Amino acid sequence: MGLKTRADYLKSLKGMRPNIYKFGELIEDVTAHAATRRTVESHARGFDASHDPKYAQDFSTVSSFTGEKIHRWNSMMETLEDIMGNSKLKRWMYRFTGSCNGGLCVGWNAQNVMWNVTALIDKECGTHYQERLKKWILGAQEKGLVVAGALTDAKGDRSLRPSQQADPDSNVHVKEVRKDGIVISGTKAMICGVAASNEIFILPGSGYRDEDKDYAVVVVVPRDIEGLTIVETRRPSDTREMEDGFDIPEMGITQAFLFFQDCFVPNERVFMCQEAKFAGKVIEYFTANYRACIGACVAGQGDVMIGAGALMARTNGLAAATFSAKMVEMAVNNETTYCMGIGAMALGKKGPGGMWVADSLTAHTNKVHVATLPYETKRLCQDIGGGVVETGCFPSSKDFNDPKYGHLVRKALQASAKFSAETRARAARLSEWLTLGAGVPGCMHGGGSPDGAKLVVRAFTPVNEFADYARKIAGITEEVPEPEKKK
Amino acid sequence: MGLKTRADYLKSLKGMRPNIYKFGELIEDVTAHAATRRTVESHARGFDASHDPKYAQDFSTVSSFTGEKIHRWNSMMETLEDIMGNSKLKRWMYRFTGSCNGGLCVGWNAQNVMWNVTALIDKECGTHYQERLKKWILGAQEKGLVVAGALTDAKGDRSLRPSQQADPDSNVHVKEVRKDGIVISGTKAMICGVAASNEIFILPGSGYRDEDKDYAVVVVVPRDIEGLTIVETRRPSDTREMEDGFDIPEMGITQAFLFFQDCFVPNERVFMCQEAKFAGKVIEYFTANYRACIGACVAGQGDVMIGAGALMARTNGLAAATFSAKMVEMAVNNETTYCMGIGAMALGKKGPGGMWVADSLTAHTNKVHVATLPYETKRLCQDIGGGVVETGCFPSSKDFNDPKYGHLVRKALQASAKFSAETRARAARLSEWLTLGAGVPGCMHGGGSPDGAKLVVRAFTPVNEFADYARKIAGITEEVPEPEKKK
Amino acid sequence: MGLKTRADYLKSLKGMRPNIYKFGELIEDVTAHAATRRTVESHARGFDASHDPKYAQDFSTVSSFTGEKIHRWNSMMETLEDIMGNSKLKRWMYRFTGSCNGGLCVGWNAQNVMWNVTALIDKECGTHYQERLKKWILGAQEKGLVVAGALTDAKGDRSLRPSQQADPDSNVHVKEVRKDGIVISGTKAMICGVAASNEIFILPGSGYRDEDKDYAVVVVVPRDIEGLTIVETRRPSDTREMEDGFDIPEMGITQAFLFFQDCFVPNERVFMCQEAKFAGKVIEYFTANYRACIGACVAGQGDVMIGAGALMARTNGLAAATFSAKMVEMAVNNETTYCMGIGAMALGKKGPGGMWVADSLTAHTNKVHVATLPYETKRLCQDIGGGVVETGCFPSSKDFNDPKYGHLVRKALQASAKFSAETRARAARLSEWLTLGAGVPGCMHGGGSPDGAKLVVRAFTPVNEFADYARKIAGITEEVPEPEKKK
Amino acid sequence: MGLKTRADYLKSLKGMRPNIYKFGELIEDVTAHAATRRTVESHARGFDASHDPKYAQDFSTVSSFTGEKIHRWNSMMETLEDIMGNSKLKRWMYRFTGSCNGGLCVGWNAQNVMWNVTALIDKECGTHYQERLKKWILGAQEKGLVVAGALTDAKGDRSLRPSQQADPDSNVHVKEVRKDGIVISGTKAMICGVAASNEIFILPGSGYRDEDKDYAVVVVVPRDIEGLTIVETRRPSDTREMEDGFDIPEMGITQAFLFFQDCFVPNERVFMCQEAKFAGKVIEYFTANYRACIGACVAGQGDVMIGAGALMARTNGLAAATFSAKMVEMAVNNETTYCMGIGAMALGKKGPGGMWVADSLTAHTNKVHVATLPYETKRLCQDIGGGVVETGCFPSSKDFNDPKYGHLVRKALQASAKFSAETRARAARLSEWLTLGAGVPGCMHGGGSPDGAKLVVRAFTPVNEFADYARKIAGITEEVPEPEKKK
Repeated sequence: MGLKTRADYLKSLKGMRPNIYKFGELIEDVTAHAATRRTVESHARGFDASHDPKYAQDFSTVSSFTGEKIHRWNSMMETLEDIMGNSKLKRWMYRFTGSCNGGLCVGWNAQNVMWNVTALIDKECGTHYQERLKKWILGAQEKGLVVAGALTDAKGDRSLRPSQQADPDSNVHVKEVRKDGIVISGTKAMICGVAASNEIFILPGSGYRDEDKDYAVVVVVPRDIEGLTIVETRRPSDTREMEDGFDIPEMGITQAFLFFQDCFVPNERVFMCQEAKFAGKVIEYFTANYRACIGACVAGQGDVMIGAGALMARTNGLAAATFSAKMVEMAVNNETTYCMGIGAMALGKKGPGGMWVADSLTAHTNKVHVATLPYETKRLCQDIGGGVVETGCFPSSKDFNDPKYGHLVRKALQASAKFSAETRARAARLSEWLTLGAGVPGCMHGGGSPDGAKLVVRAFTPVNEFADYARKIAGITEEVPEPEKKK
Repeated sequence: MGLKTRADYLKSLKGMRPNIYKFGELIEDVTAHAATRRTVESHARGFDASHDPKYAQDFSTVSSFTGEKIHRWNSMMETLEDIMGNSKLKRWMYRFTGSCNGGLCVGWNAQNVMWNVTALIDKECGTHYQERLKKWILGAQEKGLVVAGALTDAKGDRSLRPSQQADPDSNVHVKEVRKDGIVISGTKAMICGVAASNEIFILPGSGYRDEDKDYAVVVVVPRDIEGLTIVETRRPSDTREMEDGFDIPEMGITQAFLFFQDCFVPNERVFMCQEAKFAGKVIEYFTANYRACIGACVAGQGDVMIGAGALMARTNGLAAATFSAKMVEMAVNNETTYCMGIGAMALGKKGPGGMWVADSLTAHTNKVHVATLPYETKRLCQDIGGGVVETGCFPSSKDFNDPKYGHLVRKALQASAKFSAETRARAARLSEWLTLGAGVPGCMHGGGSPDGAKLVVRAFTPVNEFADYARKIAGITEEVPEPEKKK
Repeated sequence: MGLKTRADYLKSLKGMRPNIYKFGELIEDVTAHAATRRTVESHARGFDASHDPKYAQDFSTVSSFTGEKIHRWNSMMETLEDIMGNSKLKRWMYRFTGSCNGGLCVGWNAQNVMWNVTALIDKECGTHYQERLKKWILGAQEKGLVVAGALTDAKGDRSLRPSQQADPDSNVHVKEVRKDGIVISGTKAMICGVAASNEIFILPGSGYRDEDKDYAVVVVVPRDIEGLTIVETRRPSDTREMEDGFDIPEMGITQAFLFFQDCFVPNERVFMCQEAKFAGKVIEYFTANYRACIGACVAGQGDVMIGAGALMARTNGLAAATFSAKMVEMAVNNETTYCMGIGAMALGKKGPGGMWVADSLTAHTNKVHVATLPYETKRLCQDIGGGVVETGCFPSSKDFNDPKYGHLVRKALQASAKFSAETRARAARLSEWLTLGAGVPGCMHGGGSPDGAKLVVRAFTPVNEFADYARKIAGITEEVPEPEKKK
Repeated sequence: MGLKTRADYLKSLKGMRPNIYKFGELIEDVTAHAATRRTVESHARGFDASHDPKYAQDFSTVSSFTGEKIHRWNSMMETLEDIMGNSKLKRWMYRFTGSCNGGLCVGWNAQNVMWNVTALIDKECGTHYQERLKKWILGAQEKGLVVAGALTDAKGDRSLRPSQQADPDSNVHVKEVRKDGIVISGTKAMICGVAASNEIFILPGSGYRDEDKDYAVVVVVPRDIEGLTIVETRRPSDTREMEDGFDIPEMGITQAFLFFQDCFVPNERVFMCQEAKFAGKVIEYFTANYRACIGACVAGQGDVMIGAGALMARTNGLAAATFSAKMVEMAVNNETTYCMGIGAMALGKKGPGGMWVADSLTAHTNKVHVATLPYETKRLCQDIGGGVVETGCFPSSKDFNDPKYGHLVRKALQASAKFSAETRARAARLSEWLTLGAGVPGCMHGGGSPDGAKLVVRAFTPVNEFADYARKIAGITEEVPEPEKKK
């Protein structure tokens, strides 16, 4: 049965080889260590929801292969409704946890995208990647795996291609092709949710030309594969996670650097190997779906920011309704990224392997909003909350409970007599965490930068065709072509 | 056969009783008079497109009642795909004509919305409105009618309800109920496309309480019904339509005031009569669909503005690519309103009568964008075009061709030697027309004001629920309700 | 005595040779012809104000040369207070007339800028331009002249320099240098207020290199100089000016194309002739001051838009206070452009001739706002006013007063019983005129385009210096220079 | 001699009684403790600059009382130039330190504002506050004091006035008036720069009515006055200050809660005591100046963000010029708040005591920008910097230098071969610190919230007057007053 419980999930993580570090320390148990247990808790709530009658419909489905009940994040997305389910799940997850749960969604998208791409490769190259992939997916559904996805490479010098880099490990690449598998090396950077995941789905970080074909590699590996060293990154205010007290919520996000050093990956886990011309297809399908869906993430976090604003207003002694106009602005931002994503899906169609692919032009347009509107929503959350929210500007929970002067701090932090000082402090810390603390996810560059998205918008905007409509309406009879480039 | 030609259409208009005035003059033939022939031409292009292999798929469909081929704007919208077809057609129409073709879309939406609402009324009140409606729709499909829709009343004092107005005719209302029909009086204001339409679909302008039940009336009337006087409104630069020369395009828009004075409407054309509680449902369904679809209108006009910008750049001697960043901004605006509308549709569902209803929250969110983004797109179009575009700041076509000094004007207006002065002048006039001339449609208040849309956004944003998500993430254990209102 | 009256002013205009055309017609008397009398009326109000005790302080001053009372717009601006007076006068003028009064301000700025530049030329070239200029200014102060300024040339192909144009007349230039004066030819385009002016101050349209030295020319000529043909441009809805009725206000703006054909200018009116390297200085000083001051213009028009919004609210039956939040947004826009302009002045300093020059960086930054914020203010004005404002969407004043159906129109247009239908209609027409009618001035490209302004902002932003501050704060010890350009 | 050195300053701080706490710990020496030494270092750089020939002009001046050379932040601001000097100094300080140096500027403004207010009180009440104030200022100039200012009270329930609060200590108040002085109690919250200051200038947090007169109190107290307990607040990522390594800069900001418990203040340090009607004047003058000047702070930080963006571009292997358009946007934001502040000053005038008071309307308009534009500038800084900047998403400096895997981290973080990995990491940490770390100052609510500023804009916008201009331009002859309120 594919629908696992929180307990199954935690057990599966505990059984893995420790290979994650932070602050110079090896994390023995990701479910218990302060640096990783929050992201594990976030993902665990996704398991809880799949068993909760209120949410089960959005968090589970049946396998299109076996007809068995599985977690939704292990499913194939063949229809518009299927892929809309991706957005819905992501918005819920943000509402439950306040931040990003990367292990839920990049791997999910990756397996669907690769279904389409393997169809293309197999057809053109006579390979059998899709069959391999199917086997892996069946296993993932059966085991209820949480799978992080990893695209972004460390990259090195931005003005050079991968094969031109001084350090070949700037990007993950095929180092050796053996009969039974391949050896990979290189660095993936800023990968979300790895600490909460069972496996990692590796995709190329860009389209590649033939001279960079070693960088065109797609594999899935266990998170604790031999040769992989994982170092968790800092996050704003991340050392609060090491403290006691209420200065940080119990859920959270992680982002890691993955150092692959001569990792052997058996063939059954390899879904692309040096087929350079298809790397671009992976990126095209992946970003179309991902940038459509990511609108739901920032919408869900925006929902929580509206809620945090309401809590601040009330604990300040005011009605949330006082800030209706600002909350409407926040809601407009949230619904825009969510609904544009849905629109991009509805404008999409089935890909070559039968899995749904969102429309590129509008999905990338959505990314432009995802990279800007949440900043406004955060600003509004800080605007509503007042000075103690803006920079979390009040004493720590340690000072709050200090035996000598804690009573002064508590007295000063209480505003409305109806709510305890701690309630107000917790609401303010939540707002800080959401707007400039460890809960801030990477909506600007996550899933690719807005400048990249604009290049796609530009490429898909048929200026000549539009000029022709204009010309006809204006009654212009001569042709008005673009001038030839001067040499 | 329902799929009529341009010739059929023009003939149908010519045969009508003249009852439209502008500048104190009765317009004998709307297809020929300078004040109305442009909007007729715009609509005629919609007939042309239905026979053009390139566009026939988007401009025609088959009747769900008879299976016969009909114009798409006479069709029922039962599925997501059907209603997406509405958006597509509207974007095309704007690309072909540069401005609003009201007779294409309000009536189309109205017949679908009323299908859902008559299902509700019939069920609760035991009436047979839907049967009547079906009969009328079959006729409209058969005859290929262009049907304008009319919601907005003259309203009178904005602080009073209809029945409180000094003048009962401030809003269209039932004056008398007879056995064979009803008598209506009152004023509908700012109604698009009437001059190009065969019939007018009257809907209530608002939800009503029982004391205003006479205002809850839905009928379809011939445009030339006895007792109806139509006065066309001015538009910016509308007297150019009376001139010769190239200072205004050959297509255009009209908006009219409709004065109903004791008009008798037979029962078979009455689809709501005093059922006050359902007026709100009409508004709810109508605005949800309309505000989802209207994103396509402004997108289509935005496409033409990108094109106009390209023409200006090139006739100025520059490549359109010089302004890529601005064009991407314009495209982002266009795709946003278009795609959010599609998203609102995809988030919608079948209504009580089986016709699709878009999601209210996101449709109204889209209206907020429709009321703001096109202003930015216009600004960018003026930015690209330069000074002659900004206010159409160059001599008239009469001066352009003046025997004494016309050669000076023409010489001064030519920029790139590759294009004639007239081509540049036409491109500049088009830009003026689109951004502050007679081609500017009412995206701010058309289909209802953004403030009204924000009220809907506010109503549909579950602040308490969001506060609860926030509360749980913050680890707050006490309840944090909204304060009770002070008395 | 320099302080003339409205009567003096009108008389001075009536006495001039007719050389202005519009719609193929020679305008015999600019003070009476429908196409020009509105801008004359606008300027006449500036004379009225100089005699009105309430405004005399802002509209008059004493000549720094003679100590005599003069109109402020003929004065020299030596101090911060002097130049702030320029902004104040312009804001008043917009409040009085609702639109641009170009004859008031470009010439005024020009004489001050040229004072500084002639100091430079005289010093370097041994010329005596400043002495000539002084003589001319004394005369202008004595006669109380209204002087339009003209910079923008027709330009021709935007990718070529003046001397490379197919038509040398694309830009105004020195055609012949004689002993007693010079002969100029060429076209100045989109020049404001010419019809209301006594003289025209010609400045170069750009900085020039030596091969374009013939285009480096500064002269002042009578508006009716021999060889000058003036053609007025169209403006949105400009034919309303030819109508009777209330569809357009009694004040207004004009913009003209000036065709100079072999005009002889005597030496005493020549202040630069072929000194190419100083043309850039003219532009630098002119734009710094002009872009600082223009913030006051759009602020003044914005003030009137707030007022128009208030009128619409009230005649709709609502309090203006209903729209406070929107009016605050409008006020923020208005005060921003006004106050940034003042700030740019305060950051400026005396130029080489002793006249004040505003700070370039901040003046050009202000131009970026001037090119964007008024568009938002207009949108808000339309938002407040409702549908009849948005496109002026209601019957013409002719229809309003039609004997047959005018009573219906009047009834429909009345909203609040407290105000007449005509009052509401006039308020709506004013809003239309301000936001997309003949009252819209060219804030985008007027005084130069925002893209040009951004080039200045870029040039004056010391990125390397800022990188060095950042480097020190970050504790980086190695140098981090810009990479060398690849060849 | 008033111009002290860094050494004098540090010595003066070391000699004070320890009364500042953070994380439950008493800070014995603010110049050495990790939680406070960064803000002390920031202020110390202000002393350095006063002796640096390059900056001495902006950082020092002569006392208007004694003619002796003093630090500029101890000076009186009588002229426009004087107060512009305030803005200049603040922009420099941000460029040197990257963050807020509260002890430099609130106290400075306070002494000037109180000079004006004491003139009013003394005149009306026959008191001699100004004389006392002068004595204190002379001492401050002589000793070169750093003086923090404190306005914001803890406030308690936002829907109640001070005297209605359950806890009278929610706001600082006069508890007892004695012959030789007064006793004060209560809490000031979120006070900047206290740890780096010698004294604290207490102002009322709001205007007050007579029943709240005990809250109308102005005093200056030594930072270590008996009865004062200070608790420093958390800041985002503030525990990094306790770490070794390069994850945080060497300068910084602090914000504190001040708990006054029965503090006796001798009369010579009391400048307002229960004169309730003048508390509003303090707020009016203070906010006018403060909100004019604060534009320079965010501009200075924005300069550093441009610089940080340039460092990121270059260490990524790109030219800073690649991001010119974004840097121009940032510069426009910076110059806007800076220059609008200068404009508000230029529109101001001398107050009743002779010290300059900026114009309220435009100063408060500037606050609206100060509360929004820096958020955009931060977004752009993150946009330029890429993923590692957005959330500081890379391993800690501890991991960077880890003996086991540090070499992998360093290799991965190096992009351009020209710059060390540490240089790139430091630039990224700087960007994080500026945009969502401990360097983020409170531009939203600091110096009062933007909603409060909008109330002032609203109050100072003469809507009726504007409606009258509009009415005259529209040719409306009837009066159009605001409707009377319904009772």
